[in-house]
Amino acid sequence: MRGLFITFEGGEGAGKSTQARLLAEHLRACGHDVDLTREPGGTPGAEALRDFLLFGGHDLCARAEVLTHFAARADHVERRILPALERGRIVVCDRFADSTEAYQGYGLSHGNAGLLGMIGQLRALIPASPDLTFMLQVPPDIAHARLQQRGSTRADRYEAEDAAFHARVAAGFEAIARRDGARCHRIDASGEAQGVQQAIRAVLAPRLAGQGC
Amino acid sequence: MRGLFITFEGGEGAGKSTQARLLAEHLRACGHDVDLTREPGGTPGAEALRDFLLFGGHDLCARAEVLTHFAARADHVERRILPALERGRIVVCDRFADSTEAYQGYGLSHGNAGLLGMIGQLRALIPASPDLTFMLQVPPDIAHARLQQRGSTRADRYEAEDAAFHARVAAGFEAIARRDGARCHRIDASGEAQGVQQAIRAVLAPRLAGQGC
Repeated sequence: MRGLFITFEGGEGAGKSTQARLLAEHLRACGHDVDLTREPGGTPGAEALRDFLLFGGHDLCARAEVLTHFAARADHVERRILPALERGRIVVCDRFADSTEAYQGYGLSHGNAGLLGMIGQLRALIPASPDLTFMLQVPPDIAHARLQQRGSTRADRYEAEDAAFHARVAAGFEAIARRDGARCHRIDASGEAQGVQQAIRAVLAPRLAGQGC
Repeated sequence: MRGLFITFEGGEGAGKSTQARLLAEHLRACGHDVDLTREPGGTPGAEALRDFLLFGGHDLCARAEVLTHFAARADHVERRILPALERGRIVVCDRFADSTEAYQGYGLSHGNAGLLGMIGQLRALIPASPDLTFMLQVPPDIAHARLQQRGSTRADRYEAEDAAFHARVAAGFEAIARRDGARCHRIDASGEAQGVQQAIRAVLAPRLAGQGC
């Protein structure tokens, strides 16, 4: 049996990592075999590219940055996601291709049609796409407050961008959610974590009917 | 006036870097405005990716490696090659997309049709292709002897591959030369450097007729 590929998407401070972890714990408690992973990263080579992209301080043009994100994704998909799905596991991934489209396509490149077209072609080259995507939505002030609270972690290059950038990213996620309505589920993530998690589980439940929980 | 984009291709020890440098010096002496560059690399971001790919010791699947090479290429083309050509310069580049096809497509992946197809699609996404390519050819024993002589430079991950790998790379370059016969010129590079350079200039001369030398 092929597994289930679930992704979490959204801007900084939306709570993706927390919700992905809570969902993985819940599914494991229900007896499912879950692989919790993230992008960019998820394999040793892809994590090295994550470090290059987010913390390397390298200056790449937008196309080069997109191609490097897809390089990390190709390794992650081939070596971790596809093998897990083929073994029937549930893969829960914190960010995937929607983030490249929202951050590089809409955020950095202001929705440049050529770059969005290239991202679409690259998506088609990657042999995995999510069955279900949770798009976590929070107002900018709540996202900002959450980022402030994190404090100790080092800010990556996207977290360091300005408010206009993050507004374009949010608009990008919204455009994707409208386009891929069957896959993408918008979740109001402005409340406390357990309530948000309940909303996520309610969406997922029908997909797991008869398979525990 | 748009410039001229010349690439040098071939296996390890074929003398590409030497011949590219000699050609650039000759063209400059003739009054041409020349940009001598190399791949992977040619811009700060692409040089950082070169280091990641050739000396980082990171383990990426073949698709990821191809995408990372094209990421470096995208930066190089957008920020250096295209601006130079638009200003009418002659760009002389040590390796370009043919190397990705020969090394990753034929060498690492043994001519895997899926990977070669992906490389073809990525080539189409890059907005520059060479006007003229010199494919330097040397027998394996001469190439090996030249690499031994280099000595002091650190061996990159491709130089460290075995003879069967380099034979597949050579077969890959030959397949490209047959496919793109109008662009690719095979040069016997087994002799001494000045003689090889004369053969290269003889091929190039008709393209420069009336423009010096």
